[in-house]
Amino acid sequence: MTKEENKMEKIDVMESILDHNDKIAEETNTALNKSGIFTINVMGAPGAGKTSTIISIIKEIKDLKAYVVEGDIESDIDTKTLTSLGIDTIQINTHGACHLDAPTISSALKEFNMDQPGVMFIENIGNLVCPAEFQIGEHIKMLIVTVTEGSDKPYKYPLAFEKADIIIINKCDLIPYVDFDEEYFMAGVRVLNPSALVVKVSSRQNTGFKEVTEWICKKTRSLKQ
Amino acid sequence: MTKEENKMEKIDVMESILDHNDKIAEETNTALNKSGIFTINVMGAPGAGKTSTIISIIKEIKDLKAYVVEGDIESDIDTKTLTSLGIDTIQINTHGACHLDAPTISSALKEFNMDQPGVMFIENIGNLVCPAEFQIGEHIKMLIVTVTEGSDKPYKYPLAFEKADIIIINKCDLIPYVDFDEEYFMAGVRVLNPSALVVKVSSRQNTGFKEVTEWICKKTRSLKQ
Repeated sequence: MTKEENKMEKIDVMESILDHNDKIAEETNTALNKSGIFTINVMGAPGAGKTSTIISIIKEIKDLKAYVVEGDIESDIDTKTLTSLGIDTIQINTHGACHLDAPTISSALKEFNMDQPGVMFIENIGNLVCPAEFQIGEHIKMLIVTVTEGSDKPYKYPLAFEKADIIIINKCDLIPYVDFDEEYFMAGVRVLNPSALVVKVSSRQNTGFKEVTEWICKKTRSLKQ
Repeated sequence: MTKEENKMEKIDVMESILDHNDKIAEETNTALNKSGIFTINVMGAPGAGKTSTIISIIKEIKDLKAYVVEGDIESDIDTKTLTSLGIDTIQINTHGACHLDAPTISSALKEFNMDQPGVMFIENIGNLVCPAEFQIGEHIKMLIVTVTEGSDKPYKYPLAFEKADIIIINKCDLIPYVDFDEEYFMAGVRVLNPSALVVKVSSRQNTGFKEVTEWICKKTRSLKQ
């Protein structure tokens, strides 16, 4: 096989994996629609505050049932936190895989009794690269970034920013102590993604979540109509 | 093919990829030894401060020639910063791939004129997962984490902590403003890795690098003997 043929075969295999993934993601999405569960694929780098952001949002949307799927390489630290707050949570451990995929989610959701409409958060593996490549059945993608990661992230990890429907800038309480250039950051975001909602929050100080929550509730209501 | 056979085939393919990778990594390592270049695989999450840490170290080790290979999904922001400081730097863009591998490094190093002994930093893709799985020809792995990422990272991303020879805790100037539990963090580190050197630094305030630099210089000298 020539090098070119080898490369083409690799591309074919990758396309076939993505096709299979997307087919299952579509089936999951149909099931979630039937249950009236608006589903959010939560992406972000390690330590961006994905779990604490999810908790802040759930505390604010009191009148909607919340489901969480926790994706981690190892450990169930976040699931313990969530269940201690009375939130219906399933743990997935990928033991090395750097993203969630549709077959994994489809299989995990069988553990949920999805009899109540509401909102589901699927917390992806902490990684700004691969999670953005895989549909997992979600309605929207939420990207969580932080002011401590620096203003150049849209330029360095474009796909996650391009695919996001909502971008949450977390840890804004630390702005006085870091060199976050919001103008440069937003210029990078808008080149990739002219329409995503961008909201500044602090999970630690529990500020900024009203706008996020109203947006999610509106989306959830429109799903049920 | 049964599901089990399919799984075994996937494992075989993965093992064969890793074998091929490790063979090339070994060849690269031999070439670097011949040139007297001590090589560090620098790993860390997006925004951990990999480039700024590399710059702080290079500024401190004035009497050794420094080489940098910059791995990024997209962009050459960090390479521009490094070359503006007069540091010999090569840019690699993976256009989607979430880690560097040995063939990529082997091919990139041909661009360097490695006629002077010294230290080489290979800055891996910002990702706490996959980079730890692939040898790229390095002598040691340096893991850079931050106090803003939270104290639970060793428990959630164990492989990177297990494989590291030196762990740098960056952004320590932010300790007063975040909830970093050093005791819990270190307990997690030591279960996985009893011997790695762990050093607290602040790239922003340029503190803590003396110990790191002395350790690197000692390793480099022992390579040349």
